[in-house]
Amino acid sequence: MNGRDEARHVGQVKEVTSLTNPVVKDIRALAQKKYRDQQNAFMAEGLKLVIDALDLGWTIRTLVFGKSQRGNPAVEKIAARTVATGGLVLEVSEKVLGAITRRDNPQMVLGVFQQRWHALKDFKPAGNEVWVALDRVRDPGNLGTILRTVDAVGAKGVILVGETTDPFAVETVRATMGSVFAVPVAKASVDAFLAWRKAAGVTLVGTHLKGSVDYRTVDYKKGPILLVMGNEQQGLPEPIASACDTLIRIPQAGRADSLNLAVATGVALYEIRRHALPTIGKDMA
Amino acid sequence: MNGRDEARHVGQVKEVTSLTNPVVKDIRALAQKKYRDQQNAFMAEGLKLVIDALDLGWTIRTLVFGKSQRGNPAVEKIAARTVATGGLVLEVSEKVLGAITRRDNPQMVLGVFQQRWHALKDFKPAGNEVWVALDRVRDPGNLGTILRTVDAVGAKGVILVGETTDPFAVETVRATMGSVFAVPVAKASVDAFLAWRKAAGVTLVGTHLKGSVDYRTVDYKKGPILLVMGNEQQGLPEPIASACDTLIRIPQAGRADSLNLAVATGVALYEIRRHALPTIGKDMA
Repeated sequence: MNGRDEARHVGQVKEVTSLTNPVVKDIRALAQKKYRDQQNAFMAEGLKLVIDALDLGWTIRTLVFGKSQRGNPAVEKIAARTVATGGLVLEVSEKVLGAITRRDNPQMVLGVFQQRWHALKDFKPAGNEVWVALDRVRDPGNLGTILRTVDAVGAKGVILVGETTDPFAVETVRATMGSVFAVPVAKASVDAFLAWRKAAGVTLVGTHLKGSVDYRTVDYKKGPILLVMGNEQQGLPEPIASACDTLIRIPQAGRADSLNLAVATGVALYEIRRHALPTIGKDMA
Repeated sequence: MNGRDEARHVGQVKEVTSLTNPVVKDIRALAQKKYRDQQNAFMAEGLKLVIDALDLGWTIRTLVFGKSQRGNPAVEKIAARTVATGGLVLEVSEKVLGAITRRDNPQMVLGVFQQRWHALKDFKPAGNEVWVALDRVRDPGNLGTILRTVDAVGAKGVILVGETTDPFAVETVRATMGSVFAVPVAKASVDAFLAWRKAAGVTLVGTHLKGSVDYRTVDYKKGPILLVMGNEQQGLPEPIASACDTLIRIPQAGRADSLNLAVATGVALYEIRRHALPTIGKDMA
């Protein structure tokens, strides 16, 4: 039995202190998109995130925790759940944890999960739902922050259009603060997106520097809305801009194009959901 | 005459191809806060940023451009302005540019500027102005993005309270997209901030997870407002929270504390300035 078979033996906690352990090598490789794609997997750090992910039905392949966590009831429980679903549990040294996370003060618990992509055809906006499409978003931090905002504002899912940064990159997952597990994500080419949109019966609201409509003046209450955001450098490309029902603009006092993409998305989403969010002090505590 | 004296000779363009050049060494050291403080300087990348900075009256110490820019009229002009104000101009190899910026595809122009801190006592909120205070902000990207948003929304300045990340860090300056030159920044201890606030006659609006007031329901039109944001991990500390006139909350559909600091600041600022921003399609083009 070689090291890999041994480590993959289901139902037992494997102690690992070596960086040459093949399972550890596989996890470290997840820092690169190529290997995330090959393994169809990604890494999420932090006990709370791992618990959230399991509660939301994500498939955990490997649970990794630092030695100091042995006997922590929450960790033991999550280890048992991992084993029960056919996953592997590794107890590792701090050195190994640091190497996996590439951090000086690593989280003591992390999980390797199977990626989950939704098919665009399964995205069916209805009622007053709000959805988001991101055109060629490039910055991992921006994408992660937007997923977090989508979750917070109660929007339903995100479509990544064209060549975008990877939602399962470590930096992106970190920036989502766990929302990567809560927000459904699909990807599509521009053509596939535009074809889907025709069938979906959703109102396309694009933000555009040349948008002639003030973002505060639109009636967002009529049926499902898809907010479309252009990328960090170029804004919305022509075919998508012309497919929009409305091109809105967020007024800016200073120079043009002076909002960060994640901030602009947040401001737009909070405006679109303005009528739908519960009022604090009235219908929520 | 040693290398440093030679390179500092005012009024001439110095060609540099060596990483051991003392001026290059000084610039590279600006990656670390210790040396930024020692030199009272920082680096900003990009021709447009450098032009903006000079237009806004910032003091340039050194202009650095890549060889390929020789003869570019805009660069020649900015070089002449640099020399005229007693600054140094370096024409460098791509290798040196890459080493200075620590990037594979560096900007071809960068400037080293003198830091500029405002004294808190010179911040005098008046009329319907909006100002921002950030308590112990930790993430350089967040701080930079917030400076950019403050600029975009037409707020007047930022007070950094307590131990915060450095507004002149390379990553922060990058995230500001030039707004570091447009937004006045002061720093203060919690005590100094609270003392200033008493004298300043400004309404303190804090965001707080336990805030009982919906951010959409406040009348932001009464006199100057100071928006106070707590840090990424802990929110507002007690002494600052209790000094606030109003503690607002941004409703969230998902988990508590699920907005990124820069996004939350953006959503709050756009709400506070909602009545003051020009309406697109009406009073602006």
